[in-house]
Amino acid sequence: MLKLEQLYNLIDQEVRQLEWPERPEKLYGPLQYMMDMGGKRIRPRLCLISYNLFKDDIGKHILSPALALEVFHNFTLIHDDIMDNADIRRGRPTVYRKWDNNVAILSGDTMCIWAFKMLGQAPADRLDKVLKLFSQTTIEICEGQQMDMDFEDRMDVSLDEYIKMIGLKTSVLLACSSAMGAVIAGADDHICKGLYDFAYKLGLAFQIQDDYLDSFGDEKTFGKKIGGDILNNKKTWLLIRCREEACKKDAAKENTCKRDAAEENTCKRDGGTEKPFTSELEDLLKLEESEGEKKIQAIKDFYRKLGIDTMAQKAIVSYYQDALHTLEQTELAPEQKKQMEIFAQTLVSRNK
Amino acid sequence: MLKLEQLYNLIDQEVRQLEWPERPEKLYGPLQYMMDMGGKRIRPRLCLISYNLFKDDIGKHILSPALALEVFHNFTLIHDDIMDNADIRRGRPTVYRKWDNNVAILSGDTMCIWAFKMLGQAPADRLDKVLKLFSQTTIEICEGQQMDMDFEDRMDVSLDEYIKMIGLKTSVLLACSSAMGAVIAGADDHICKGLYDFAYKLGLAFQIQDDYLDSFGDEKTFGKKIGGDILNNKKTWLLIRCREEACKKDAAKENTCKRDAAEENTCKRDGGTEKPFTSELEDLLKLEESEGEKKIQAIKDFYRKLGIDTMAQKAIVSYYQDALHTLEQTELAPEQKKQMEIFAQTLVSRNK
Repeated sequence: MLKLEQLYNLIDQEVRQLEWPERPEKLYGPLQYMMDMGGKRIRPRLCLISYNLFKDDIGKHILSPALALEVFHNFTLIHDDIMDNADIRRGRPTVYRKWDNNVAILSGDTMCIWAFKMLGQAPADRLDKVLKLFSQTTIEICEGQQMDMDFEDRMDVSLDEYIKMIGLKTSVLLACSSAMGAVIAGADDHICKGLYDFAYKLGLAFQIQDDYLDSFGDEKTFGKKIGGDILNNKKTWLLIRCREEACKKDAAKENTCKRDAAEENTCKRDGGTEKPFTSELEDLLKLEESEGEKKIQAIKDFYRKLGIDTMAQKAIVSYYQDALHTLEQTELAPEQKKQMEIFAQTLVSRNK
Repeated sequence: MLKLEQLYNLIDQEVRQLEWPERPEKLYGPLQYMMDMGGKRIRPRLCLISYNLFKDDIGKHILSPALALEVFHNFTLIHDDIMDNADIRRGRPTVYRKWDNNVAILSGDTMCIWAFKMLGQAPADRLDKVLKLFSQTTIEICEGQQMDMDFEDRMDVSLDEYIKMIGLKTSVLLACSSAMGAVIAGADDHICKGLYDFAYKLGLAFQIQDDYLDSFGDEKTFGKKIGGDILNNKKTWLLIRCREEACKKDAAKENTCKRDAAEENTCKRDGGTEKPFTSELEDLLKLEESEGEKKIQAIKDFYRKLGIDTMAQKAIVSYYQDALHTLEQTELAPEQKKQMEIFAQTLVSRNK
């Protein structure tokens, strides 16, 4: 097995060597632009680590499919940015803003297809498994994005639904990355499955971490403005959990009131009538974007008051532990498990 | 070999049996909607005919990849309709009009990926060839669409450029369909290549036919309004050829004038000063959409005056003959060639 650092260098080198045709310029310019934006290259890294657990001969047959994961991920960002009206991505204008809608649609399509083209360099005798895994995964990602958009119009999204959505939108691609490396290396099906499940759970921790950092991260290290999700009333883990908690607390209060009322014939807490938590939250959510900083601060304070920040941290640790447990259950050798653990740890201990 | 009619029935049956997940509804509703719209199913038909030239065992391993071609084609229609602001497709509202932009983008993406998923049912030992062919082809289709959009802002598109564009936008998918059936059947590479080239040329004839019918077709049989291309000043074969011809005629006239002037010291034709053909055409192109019927009639008259309608017919026949010649050159047996010829003939003799 190579060191993680060596594997990461191989991925970075391969990304730099990626070449797109020069014309049509409006088609391939955006692809180059997206790939040049950087990013953590988490998916190809994970895929290569997984492959390298079993095999040391690293060539196009694994590097190209590994990069397909990154290319596909970048395609989803181009199209998601149109759908989300996002102006900025990694500090630069999004493709549909820099060019236009049509360019973003078509160059995104090309990037999606290009990922499948790159996948085609997987060993011929494993290509059917690889294609099946990748196409199923990428369909699920579209389903996750649709669920996410459907959530926008709903006020009653449950935490279970949210977990299902991020499972599709985020986790399955990490899971696919993790499994694909093993599949290409020719590992046993149940080991591939174990690596899939491990990364799926890790992905849940990763996404909740993302939600957490968007509100509670340090602006300097996080690299983008804190509070974007709050401003957009985005249905994140924090907001959904907060709504549930507010309801719960209100219900508890009401019960106390009823008891108090029965005993003392009054309904007071802290000596006065108090606004229910749910109403307080709804009022905060109604604050306009123009009151940006105020809204961000107020909602963060509210999250803290209800302990949502701590709950998020606990949820992250819990999914992370769950992922490690799944990894532990696989039939991998201790040093193979160790390698994956180090990756998992850096992923979840990130602050950006 | 089966009869074409039998093969077509198998395709229709397979299309009817296609099943999409029910949820998310906004993701899969549009897919069902598009596939229900009908269409000539040319690509899967061609793929199946090609396969059946060599093999009679028709199962999922060929039907599924054949349908992938149709699914992919329908995906391009969804996204093209957004890019072209098209309201109507096959007499019904386009997806982005019936739902919205975001739904059309994401359900299109899903449909594109679904095509690759279906491709995955090709025989495992030929999947690498199939995937390579299909991904290369579908990238070229995106390039063709980009070229087509780039043409919108240009007045100097040459006929060569136009042929290159329709080659990418239309022909390569027919070529891919034709080759893919043979590839899946395990035919020799040079026969696959021959079938590719044959259908590529047939595709050029098919597209010019499409341009011709959009202006000179019979509204009842054509099934959609005649003159859409004319109203939009679309750079079709007719318009590009017409511009070239107008320039040529003007240049010839000028030369005649110069000669006349040298001899008689006057520059007259038919006894008076006449507007150059190029100016006449530009004036007609400037007619507003509100003058729809008038514009359509005037440009059709102008096409006829310059003989563009006849030239288009000749070009169609010429590409068609070229296609048949390419087919003739392959090492296929006479009955195999005959089968393909019948298909080619019905394709190009269509009037809708």
